[in-house]
Amino acid sequence: MAATEERIDTIGLADLLHRVEALEDAQRGKVQKKNKLAIIAWGGDLDRIWPTTILATTAAASGMEASVFFTFWGLFAIVRPGVRITGENWMQKMMSVMNAGSAQKAKLSRYHFAGAGPAMFKKLADDHQVAKPEELIATAQELGVRLIPCQMTMDLLGLKREDLIDGLEEPIGAATALLEMKESAIQLFI
Amino acid sequence: MAATEERIDTIGLADLLHRVEALEDAQRGKVQKKNKLAIIAWGGDLDRIWPTTILATTAAASGMEASVFFTFWGLFAIVRPGVRITGENWMQKMMSVMNAGSAQKAKLSRYHFAGAGPAMFKKLADDHQVAKPEELIATAQELGVRLIPCQMTMDLLGLKREDLIDGLEEPIGAATALLEMKESAIQLFI
Amino acid sequence: MAATEERIDTIGLADLLHRVEALEDAQRGKVQKKNKLAIIAWGGDLDRIWPTTILATTAAASGMEASVFFTFWGLFAIVRPGVRITGENWMQKMMSVMNAGSAQKAKLSRYHFAGAGPAMFKKLADDHQVAKPEELIATAQELGVRLIPCQMTMDLLGLKREDLIDGLEEPIGAATALLEMKESAIQLFI
Repeated sequence: MAATEERIDTIGLADLLHRVEALEDAQRGKVQKKNKLAIIAWGGDLDRIWPTTILATTAAASGMEASVFFTFWGLFAIVRPGVRITGENWMQKMMSVMNAGSAQKAKLSRYHFAGAGPAMFKKLADDHQVAKPEELIATAQELGVRLIPCQMTMDLLGLKREDLIDGLEEPIGAATALLEMKESAIQLFI
Repeated sequence: MAATEERIDTIGLADLLHRVEALEDAQRGKVQKKNKLAIIAWGGDLDRIWPTTILATTAAASGMEASVFFTFWGLFAIVRPGVRITGENWMQKMMSVMNAGSAQKAKLSRYHFAGAGPAMFKKLADDHQVAKPEELIATAQELGVRLIPCQMTMDLLGLKREDLIDGLEEPIGAATALLEMKESAIQLFI
Repeated sequence: MAATEERIDTIGLADLLHRVEALEDAQRGKVQKKNKLAIIAWGGDLDRIWPTTILATTAAASGMEASVFFTFWGLFAIVRPGVRITGENWMQKMMSVMNAGSAQKAKLSRYHFAGAGPAMFKKLADDHQVAKPEELIATAQELGVRLIPCQMTMDLLGLKREDLIDGLEEPIGAATALLEMKESAIQLFI
């Protein structure tokens, strides 16, 4: 009877070995996903900053890791209020005029030409208890959402760390941003 | 010989145990992905509703699960034709004027100022047998694509369930939308 | 003692079997992710072509697979310079006027009405050594980024393979594009 058990064990072991090999094959070279949200905040308009901060804040509040990479127009959402992109360069100056920064001045893309749009939308939000972008960015920081500026965009606009709001992580480039996204269960370009 | 086999089995077992532990370690805390597409339909313009519905419908037809979360401007795509956001609130009224709802009136963002754009594009589509958005939304429903309204946007606009088209799921918030995305192999913000 | 060892092995084997079954259950029907980036390049503006090409090129340079699916307005980024969408169809003609193609003429969406915008931005990029879109598309091709046109958009615009730049893959439809995304660790709609 000992011999029979042994045989069963040997067969069982061979079978298990094949199943473990199949599992290893399936996993080989595959990327594992963490319980994490990574957003590329590309847009600087109010109607994009809103979903970005609402999703990141909700994720953090639900126990997910969350990081936001502010790039291109999105960088303007984390420029310190009052900072203007000056300098000798006429092009940077022109860009600064067209995109006078900070979340407080962010425009609603659809309301761009209506003028009243952003103020209206904020008031609409106030009446319905939906947080404002600058409040959401502050809340996101408190909840541990990692806010990360794009180094290339900063270079392009001639912005320094001190021109950006407090509480941000060190600026990173595209390669590091890809690593942030790769390990995240959710990645969005907003 | 029985002793030898036993030793082999014991060695094999120890090896297998390590390999199973390695597989368990790799999987611990990792998020598994289902064969599912989850779209956040943020944009209300025709040129965004189109890829949203084409991708969701194609996914469903290919045997994937598919869900679309209509939020912000995207919500207007599933407002019942003829519904206008009235009510006392002047801001909601203003918003309703700027975004007179329903997929049939959706604008092409690039053609916004051309006026003729959307009609032209639909005719262009007709001539080439590419389905129209309202047809695609109907087809998506028939194929089992889950269409989900954003509760916060509905509250913001003062919209009720009966103001939206038939066949939608119960409205959800950002936390539930994140769960939809987290388990999906593909998540897109459109 | 042989009997004791045997008993231990049997117990160990039963335990291992359960753990392997648990691993198999967790994996059943789940989608595995490759070290790959898949971008849907939907937008044709310079400020979208830029992040698309920078991310794809950086991914390829970091050893990731990378593919870009050019659809809708995005298709214009890979139209051969000088090609105009002519033909009998007045609608295609109108579209061609509004979107006179090729990456070199791509517009910055926010600068659309400023006119000077794109030229300014390119000069700004030159001064700071940030590559231009057409250079980035060429670099992407050299680094092995797969550039894939959308068949439906080509049909809609009456474009043929010879109207597009060299070095592209065969055009594909939405179903194949979904397969590209499903196996990718990162998928973005830009």
